[in-house]
Amino acid sequence: MKTYLDCIPCFFKQALEAARLAGASAKTQKRVIDELAKALPEFPLTSSPPEMGRIIYQLINKITRTKDPYLALKDKGNQLALDMEHALRKKINNSHDRLLTATELSILGNIIDYGAKNMLDVEAEMAKILEEENRVKTLADKDNFHYMQFREGLGEARTILYLADNAGEVVFDKILIEEIRRYAGNKKIIYAVKEKPIINDALIDDAYVCGMPEIAGVISCGADAPGTILSLCSRKFLEIYNRAEMIISKGQGNFEALSLEKRPIFFLFMAKCPVIAREVGCNVGEMILIGNSA
Amino acid sequence: MKTYLDCIPCFFKQALEAARLAGASAKTQKRVIDELAKALPEFPLTSSPPEMGRIIYQLINKITRTKDPYLALKDKGNQLALDMEHALRKKINNSHDRLLTATELSILGNIIDYGAKNMLDVEAEMAKILEEENRVKTLADKDNFHYMQFREGLGEARTILYLADNAGEVVFDKILIEEIRRYAGNKKIIYAVKEKPIINDALIDDAYVCGMPEIAGVISCGADAPGTILSLCSRKFLEIYNRAEMIISKGQGNFEALSLEKRPIFFLFMAKCPVIAREVGCNVGEMILIGNSA
Repeated sequence: MKTYLDCIPCFFKQALEAARLAGASAKTQKRVIDELAKALPEFPLTSSPPEMGRIIYQLINKITRTKDPYLALKDKGNQLALDMEHALRKKINNSHDRLLTATELSILGNIIDYGAKNMLDVEAEMAKILEEENRVKTLADKDNFHYMQFREGLGEARTILYLADNAGEVVFDKILIEEIRRYAGNKKIIYAVKEKPIINDALIDDAYVCGMPEIAGVISCGADAPGTILSLCSRKFLEIYNRAEMIISKGQGNFEALSLEKRPIFFLFMAKCPVIAREVGCNVGEMILIGNSA
Repeated sequence: MKTYLDCIPCFFKQALEAARLAGASAKTQKRVIDELAKALPEFPLTSSPPEMGRIIYQLINKITRTKDPYLALKDKGNQLALDMEHALRKKINNSHDRLLTATELSILGNIIDYGAKNMLDVEAEMAKILEEENRVKTLADKDNFHYMQFREGLGEARTILYLADNAGEVVFDKILIEEIRRYAGNKKIIYAVKEKPIINDALIDDAYVCGMPEIAGVISCGADAPGTILSLCSRKFLEIYNRAEMIISKGQGNFEALSLEKRPIFFLFMAKCPVIAREVGCNVGEMILIGNSA
């Protein structure tokens, strides 16, 4: 997906928030904004938003001399999600279609995002996830929620590559992978995280803390963009990507980076902004599960 | 009021909208954004938002080769407000405190603003104004709504300068001025509009179309900023400003431009963004009537 002009005000908003999170003084915050303004005219809109996001956050880290301003938020997100693990499993045990419920919960887990949603009260959102019975219902035949196709794909694929989005969300992904194994039998499933800190995206450490290695192979994609930009990924990752019979792509950033790719990808995310909603043809806040069958 | 860093993403958003309203192509819209980005580092945050707003809209007009992209919206706003005139008067006739109701309606009329509120459905908002009985109630003793002080000031002042905000809103201002005359007797009241097109701010033509000369003297402030920036105003206007025993300042832009001034100003506006809400100490969407007694 290309970058839209409407993304630009949001880039400035995100840069300001990240600078504040990094503890930057007002003067340094202004410098971040000014440097971003200077970089902007050079940036081609044909690139995807995660490509610009990567440049922005590199700039912020350089100016504020931080490496991982979201570390504390990520740790908090992991802990909150782990604290919810039992409740999430209970919800699945009580559901009519375990795989559907696990899929929906995994998409709802995508709410844990400090990039697009600002200053989100994570705890409140987490509680809301468990309360929102109405959202976790049979959406099987809805537009932008192609569950039957997804389930069929899971049944057929022998190897699955699962692209992580944010820390915390990993717990939800782990539970979905458990249900995929329960539904579709033993598969080779690889869970790919980012190589270096970028916003609140999951890294290897987050995957371990959340217990992912117990259920799937964990690798890094080799890149540090807030979305899987293939040209930045490692050769090892690209081999797995090209061979996987099904790819599960979590989050808006991965959709932005991969929406034009031709591999058999299913995109699972919450549509968090008007630009993405227009791109997909949905409402902001909608739960999306769309296939990209080659 | 100074410009906050949080105003900057909003500048880009407004620039994009204005460029689109001016019929700019995607390429020209990008040029507007890039030129704004280039100008940004040079802009001191000690200046008020209307000073930056003026520069931004001048830039847009230059790049898009338009002089008044908001003309059609202003005409529509005037017509809508004139269509409501009878209903507004009826509301005042049926109220317990005519002056209070006229004051509140005049502040609600400030909703007609295409700068801070984007793509507002004016007709829906207008209908809402008349329906919202709950909002038009006795707020006399509330924080940030100093009605008693305002009424007292009106009683004492012999000359009043009334600073206009947007087109359309002029009709609401005219009705308030009628009620001021009814309550406080004959006064010299001057209604000041902007000199040249800037966003949807009222100009001399708008004041005439809305019937303002029937009830008050109409002048231009001599400037073209979206707020009364005194250093840009005409000598004639400044003489009136300095001699007026009371100044009624409508809208957020005039508050941003004049909040630090020492003349006896009452600011009447709707708090439209988080930055102004923090500055005033109120909620977004709150009706504000605060004095600045020298």
